[in-house]
Amino acid sequence: MAESRTETDSMGAIEVPAAHYWGAQTQRSIQNFPIGVARFRWQPPVIRALGVLKKAAAQANAELGELPADIGNLIVRAADEVIEGKLDAEFPLVVFQTGSGTQSNMNANEVISNRAIELAGGQVGSKAPVHPNDHVNRGQSSNDTFPTAMHIAVAEELSRHFFPSVGRLRTTLDAKAKAFQDIVKTGRTHLQDATPITLGQEISAWVAQIDFALDAVQAALPGIYDLAIGGTAVGTGLNAHPRFGELAAARIADITGLPFRSAENKFFALSAHDALVNLSAALRTLAGALMKMANDVRWLASGPRCGIGELLIPENEPGSSIMPGKVNPTQCEAMTMVCAQVYGNDAAVAFAGSQGNFQLNVYKPVMVHNVLESIGLLADACLSFDEHCAVGIEPNLPRIEENLNKNLMLVTALNRHIGYDKAAAIAKKAHKEHSTLREAALALGFLTDGQYDEWIVPLDMTHPSKG
Amino acid sequence: MAESRTETDSMGAIEVPAAHYWGAQTQRSIQNFPIGVARFRWQPPVIRALGVLKKAAAQANAELGELPADIGNLIVRAADEVIEGKLDAEFPLVVFQTGSGTQSNMNANEVISNRAIELAGGQVGSKAPVHPNDHVNRGQSSNDTFPTAMHIAVAEELSRHFFPSVGRLRTTLDAKAKAFQDIVKTGRTHLQDATPITLGQEISAWVAQIDFALDAVQAALPGIYDLAIGGTAVGTGLNAHPRFGELAAARIADITGLPFRSAENKFFALSAHDALVNLSAALRTLAGALMKMANDVRWLASGPRCGIGELLIPENEPGSSIMPGKVNPTQCEAMTMVCAQVYGNDAAVAFAGSQGNFQLNVYKPVMVHNVLESIGLLADACLSFDEHCAVGIEPNLPRIEENLNKNLMLVTALNRHIGYDKAAAIAKKAHKEHSTLREAALALGFLTDGQYDEWIVPLDMTHPSKG
Amino acid sequence: MAESRTETDSMGAIEVPAAHYWGAQTQRSIQNFPIGVARFRWQPPVIRALGVLKKAAAQANAELGELPADIGNLIVRAADEVIEGKLDAEFPLVVFQTGSGTQSNMNANEVISNRAIELAGGQVGSKAPVHPNDHVNRGQSSNDTFPTAMHIAVAEELSRHFFPSVGRLRTTLDAKAKAFQDIVKTGRTHLQDATPITLGQEISAWVAQIDFALDAVQAALPGIYDLAIGGTAVGTGLNAHPRFGELAAARIADITGLPFRSAENKFFALSAHDALVNLSAALRTLAGALMKMANDVRWLASGPRCGIGELLIPENEPGSSIMPGKVNPTQCEAMTMVCAQVYGNDAAVAFAGSQGNFQLNVYKPVMVHNVLESIGLLADACLSFDEHCAVGIEPNLPRIEENLNKNLMLVTALNRHIGYDKAAAIAKKAHKEHSTLREAALALGFLTDGQYDEWIVPLDMTHPSKG
Amino acid sequence: MAESRTETDSMGAIEVPAAHYWGAQTQRSIQNFPIGVARFRWQPPVIRALGVLKKAAAQANAELGELPADIGNLIVRAADEVIEGKLDAEFPLVVFQTGSGTQSNMNANEVISNRAIELAGGQVGSKAPVHPNDHVNRGQSSNDTFPTAMHIAVAEELSRHFFPSVGRLRTTLDAKAKAFQDIVKTGRTHLQDATPITLGQEISAWVAQIDFALDAVQAALPGIYDLAIGGTAVGTGLNAHPRFGELAAARIADITGLPFRSAENKFFALSAHDALVNLSAALRTLAGALMKMANDVRWLASGPRCGIGELLIPENEPGSSIMPGKVNPTQCEAMTMVCAQVYGNDAAVAFAGSQGNFQLNVYKPVMVHNVLESIGLLADACLSFDEHCAVGIEPNLPRIEENLNKNLMLVTALNRHIGYDKAAAIAKKAHKEHSTLREAALALGFLTDGQYDEWIVPLDMTHPSKG
Repeated sequence: MAESRTETDSMGAIEVPAAHYWGAQTQRSIQNFPIGVARFRWQPPVIRALGVLKKAAAQANAELGELPADIGNLIVRAADEVIEGKLDAEFPLVVFQTGSGTQSNMNANEVISNRAIELAGGQVGSKAPVHPNDHVNRGQSSNDTFPTAMHIAVAEELSRHFFPSVGRLRTTLDAKAKAFQDIVKTGRTHLQDATPITLGQEISAWVAQIDFALDAVQAALPGIYDLAIGGTAVGTGLNAHPRFGELAAARIADITGLPFRSAENKFFALSAHDALVNLSAALRTLAGALMKMANDVRWLASGPRCGIGELLIPENEPGSSIMPGKVNPTQCEAMTMVCAQVYGNDAAVAFAGSQGNFQLNVYKPVMVHNVLESIGLLADACLSFDEHCAVGIEPNLPRIEENLNKNLMLVTALNRHIGYDKAAAIAKKAHKEHSTLREAALALGFLTDGQYDEWIVPLDMTHPSKG
Repeated sequence: MAESRTETDSMGAIEVPAAHYWGAQTQRSIQNFPIGVARFRWQPPVIRALGVLKKAAAQANAELGELPADIGNLIVRAADEVIEGKLDAEFPLVVFQTGSGTQSNMNANEVISNRAIELAGGQVGSKAPVHPNDHVNRGQSSNDTFPTAMHIAVAEELSRHFFPSVGRLRTTLDAKAKAFQDIVKTGRTHLQDATPITLGQEISAWVAQIDFALDAVQAALPGIYDLAIGGTAVGTGLNAHPRFGELAAARIADITGLPFRSAENKFFALSAHDALVNLSAALRTLAGALMKMANDVRWLASGPRCGIGELLIPENEPGSSIMPGKVNPTQCEAMTMVCAQVYGNDAAVAFAGSQGNFQLNVYKPVMVHNVLESIGLLADACLSFDEHCAVGIEPNLPRIEENLNKNLMLVTALNRHIGYDKAAAIAKKAHKEHSTLREAALALGFLTDGQYDEWIVPLDMTHPSKG
Repeated sequence: MAESRTETDSMGAIEVPAAHYWGAQTQRSIQNFPIGVARFRWQPPVIRALGVLKKAAAQANAELGELPADIGNLIVRAADEVIEGKLDAEFPLVVFQTGSGTQSNMNANEVISNRAIELAGGQVGSKAPVHPNDHVNRGQSSNDTFPTAMHIAVAEELSRHFFPSVGRLRTTLDAKAKAFQDIVKTGRTHLQDATPITLGQEISAWVAQIDFALDAVQAALPGIYDLAIGGTAVGTGLNAHPRFGELAAARIADITGLPFRSAENKFFALSAHDALVNLSAALRTLAGALMKMANDVRWLASGPRCGIGELLIPENEPGSSIMPGKVNPTQCEAMTMVCAQVYGNDAAVAFAGSQGNFQLNVYKPVMVHNVLESIGLLADACLSFDEHCAVGIEPNLPRIEENLNKNLMLVTALNRHIGYDKAAAIAKKAHKEHSTLREAALALGFLTDGQYDEWIVPLDMTHPSKG
Repeated sequence: MAESRTETDSMGAIEVPAAHYWGAQTQRSIQNFPIGVARFRWQPPVIRALGVLKKAAAQANAELGELPADIGNLIVRAADEVIEGKLDAEFPLVVFQTGSGTQSNMNANEVISNRAIELAGGQVGSKAPVHPNDHVNRGQSSNDTFPTAMHIAVAEELSRHFFPSVGRLRTTLDAKAKAFQDIVKTGRTHLQDATPITLGQEISAWVAQIDFALDAVQAALPGIYDLAIGGTAVGTGLNAHPRFGELAAARIADITGLPFRSAENKFFALSAHDALVNLSAALRTLAGALMKMANDVRWLASGPRCGIGELLIPENEPGSSIMPGKVNPTQCEAMTMVCAQVYGNDAAVAFAGSQGNFQLNVYKPVMVHNVLESIGLLADACLSFDEHCAVGIEPNLPRIEENLNKNLMLVTALNRHIGYDKAAAIAKKAHKEHSTLREAALALGFLTDGQYDEWIVPLDMTHPSKG
């Protein structure tokens, strides 16, 4: 069997590996863009999305009479194999290529065309009976298909991986907040001892912050569900049937089970990807929230003896290659590194998003790449953090009680009874003399022993009540 | 009259200028934070917001019986003067101070207390009958008041300045899009000649992009309307009446006419400012949109003779100190510089937003500073761009027509009739031989003269139709 | 006296305030760019730099015979007044204007021209005997003068304010490192107790980090000393005497005492400002270093009772409006907020720096604005931190000793004697049983009491020796 | 053969695949950090660097008598296999793990230990005769080894891949600048026609900008050559021979041929990675330079008929899946996407770099990952751009001449002869009447036909001369 076959495109003929379905333009891209090849080949979510798109397009074209039914069916069958991941090895191209993703769109066209030809018993590379441009790309342009595939990939990854994974961590933390709702402990502001809170309240802030970020991601979804398909080359829909965009979007919704729809203004949909910029920002908000949570966890677990030490976290591995017996907050570290990465990815996305010109933004591949990387890393990190850290978080009760009892800020409860200025004098005296608040309060004569007991009740200080 | 008077706080006595209402803690901050004094004093929106907050707090406390009515009234009267801007000179502090804004909260407490004392005929600095902590700050902590003031300032600036200003530019562009809806011109993708669009379609993409960004800002508003007030020091509401937060938020809503409300989770409201992070990101999305728009305008207006030259923009000033007669797209340049600044500001906000610890994020001042700067610059720049550029944008019809006629990508209309491969051959031949498409098409024999006239109709190429 | 006079430029006549020296183009800019007026007027460093530049240019032109001596002298006298700050009120323009700074260059030309005319007894606005373009701007273009002024302003602010201020903090910290070189304390890695260090060693890392960043700023200086002057409109030097750039740079060096020189490639000097991008990055490196230092300080000073508490820092102001007696690390907070701002400013600079086209980068004003803001804020914050925090840092010796004694990681000293695995067993046993290392070690029988004393000597663990 | 064997560490026993050399801690990390597994496994440069480090450490320890010669030799032999890439499959861990890289350090220790044991005929997993901690990690901690490996990997990739690749593009562009040094063309500032330059001058600015950035990268190298090795756990060098750091660095220099040395302050070397932050910034400067260059290329090549069209670039692939015959500046697009990515990576690095605490920065893996990614992408992109675009850049002479001749800014040459104001009048008249400069000049009577010929000579305008 020959090791290569000849494929042609409008630039002429080129040899491609006989073992592969891809055609001339894919081959040219392999040769022209040897950039980051080891790590930047498109991952399955994008390949699958291209399959979904091409299947839906074929269905829509067939329904509209723009493709013969048999051609449409062949395309659908080949596209199904792409969707199922059977042809992942046929997608060798990398992120850093044409900024419209043209070559990956053509990669899909070529692979589906050749596989469809094969299914029809034809000769691979012959472009008959299924032509990559005239049939698989019918009524389409890279300029509308690639951003459509971008949105499909992003929405599916959010749905499949991101929301379940982040949600799992959120659920664990929420359960911890409820379980620890009566554990009173020292609050801290400015890293300094502050008035008491419960551990449950402390954790509830993490949950609320994650919920807020998840709401932000949800709020970014409608923009993702808007699809460019139907805009073709510049947004006018030239060469597509007038109903093609709407119908293709409906078929994509059918295939994915997600509420995709045709974007209202296709000129916008091709020339800017602000829906991705917005989504990336929402992922960044989540990263900021997770960074704060992970930092709180590791600080509260710091020690074991010379730190705060109020939380106990699972010991998953030896912490040090030199310090025996050391256990480190490694899940927190992996999480915060992911957060830093998401911040960086977002900077790349927002920069790229500002650089469109006229009818096209040619930073499409780098934008979707970074958004998908952020989605995947956040989801993975939440799962890992949940399983290897969050579920095992426990209060170190003796330490919590010890810290609470010596906290001078319990004095704040006295404001309402003796005023801020006298309360301040008590705290300052106790601090200066290394005494207890009670000792200082009594020495200053601002209140009685009984009043102290009545007015300073840490648990009462954790929830509002009319005194 | 004495040039200074003695004020005291829990650290002791300190001299303050007799001509000013501020007290000991403000004075200490002036001395302790000489950072960026020339440009980083709080601007009126923040000062006004502190006035709104203190008025609402006094009203709420009075209603709840936490403050005597007369004390409450005095505070309200003094706070009204703050709101009206009469006391702006009493707020000398800068952004770079305590990270909770404590000193600016105390600045408001001190100024309002002393002005209220004066209104009551008392002695300024005496703390009677209106004490800065026990009365003006009643049931409050800097940790809940300052973020509340942040949200008030931001929401008011958005409402008062941002939405009207951006909206005005949006309206102008939308009118241009409609006015130019039938001007057919060359589309451009990859900076290369592409299939035709109308100038109205081109501009409609800018409008759609601005609308998308404005929607994102709107989507960020609910988070801004959530107020920390009622959380006091750590979120538990210690020392505040249980209904204080809710009632104070309602009074803030009354004063401002904006739908403020008490935040559900006060621990979150103190320890993170993700609502500002989110809003900052939405402002960044708008900046990205405006950058693309302004770039398109200046490229389309480039020339006058050696560029694209399809748009004419107002000539507002001599363009060059050396090149006589040069006119430059200066409004575009001011706009894109603002966009770069907003990107930078957003980076600062997001960074700061990730750095909270335990019950407090101590980057509050720098966060609200950057958000307000972005709001103000975007609003100003949109007004300026609207008045000095957008309203005067006109098509350069001879140039548009000249470019359209020589555009080889009109060949795309032939795909449906003769297939992609033959169409490509025509375009390539014309390009190579510097001939017209018609000449190349006829020479290749792929179509007749009549077919050319029937199939290649630029206006028809700008809107989808079933051929 | 008339309130206005008529000035003209190539666009025609315009009324300007009679009380001011500025002319037509400045007036147009005031009207055309009402963007951020309250905070974005050029600050003295830029105004002074324009004065330096115009003086040097007049000197060079006079030396070269390009300007009559008397005209040159008049310009020099007027420029001297700009340099001395006497005419600051004559520079009303803001950052967000033409991206080449043309209007600020013309502002300088107009003010100097009119003031020189006045000095010569002529009529302000008459352009005789000193014409703003033909004389003050002789052999210049905004495209080379404004970037030259940018570099002058930046280099002078670094020299005058930045290096002395950061250096002062560095000196204080270095003295602390030396003073505390024998105070042995717990080291911490991963926020977890680690092997001992001295407090002096800990602080020496901050000093080394600041030194590294200062070296980076120094390494960025040569790029700043390269001046665009002499390139005129596009870098070719058209209309300037061939020796003008070189000579003007020499005069600028004379006036400022800094080693400015003419840039080798003027096309680069106009079309990109990578020297500013590089410098901004070095400032960011310093900000990162200062953030780490300030974070260490506040964490080490956390408490006073429920944190680490190993450092004592000055108590400068009451920390809380609600929690009496609370003292917060406010200088650390101001510093880290400045660091976040510098990160944001740097993002704006780097973004803007990438956006040049052809012979010009039109983000000049926003670039120099952000660099100068970062320089000023870092310098101010270092001075403030030095005076109000660093000089007063003291060890909390009882706490340091208490923490050191209970630190399980002292076990690491045993690796060399009994191997990692046995040492780990000791640490784990002590941790689990809340016992001391000694107790665990003896219980496991891995060493004798005497060996423990001999092998575990915290001070010895802080410096390498051949055991 | 058994599919797994039992390995142990201080946490106990765990099953590892029998076919692999890694041990207990590697296995735990695989299980504990399933984050980004498909794309974030360490690449060969880091694995090789760990091999270099472990070899050098064994050599140094053997020289110092800290390791028996035979043990040292076994480690060297196994490390050599790591260096040669033979054991890449034994390094399964990902970036997002412990923030000190402990697990990858242990991965190296385990693999080298087991392979050395095997070479010695021992039993894999027995830790004898070569123990992963006591021998391979002798005198080391992850805290000093991992940052050492980071610097080795970065310096080697710069030397091996980055400098040659960027240098190749630089050489090509420099040759183009020289080849086109006499082609006079329209200059452009503010995107508007400006005074003439030569194409060589235009390209020389790109070269100068690349040179400047390469100098910045070079200036960042000394920091990279400083190695943390010898600092062990917290910087004190505990458990290492006093001369170990210095000697190990010397051996690393021997192995790599690069001037590595022991860092002066090891506390700094562990707790901050500002050398990487600095280097990342220099890479960002290069990215900004390349973005400007690539943008210039695609704008100058825009068209082919409705853009600027002054440059011709290679046609490498069909440009559009819908527009036949379209050719796009795809190498420019890949390049600018890489630049956006580098900007994002740099943001991640700088963020992470600011987040150290006490004796350790625990963002080591994410920092080196991003720096290496940027290095690799920039190098790849420069090679690709060079080969597929830069070498083929040619001037489109007819277009260049056409544009030059109609450029109104040739009028600037008249400033010296008739003054700015009259020159402006000529240009404005010509612009308004669509006439030539000559026609307008003569009509206004400001000069004669002969003077026009004498004074307006485009080539003369491209280099300074005393007129």
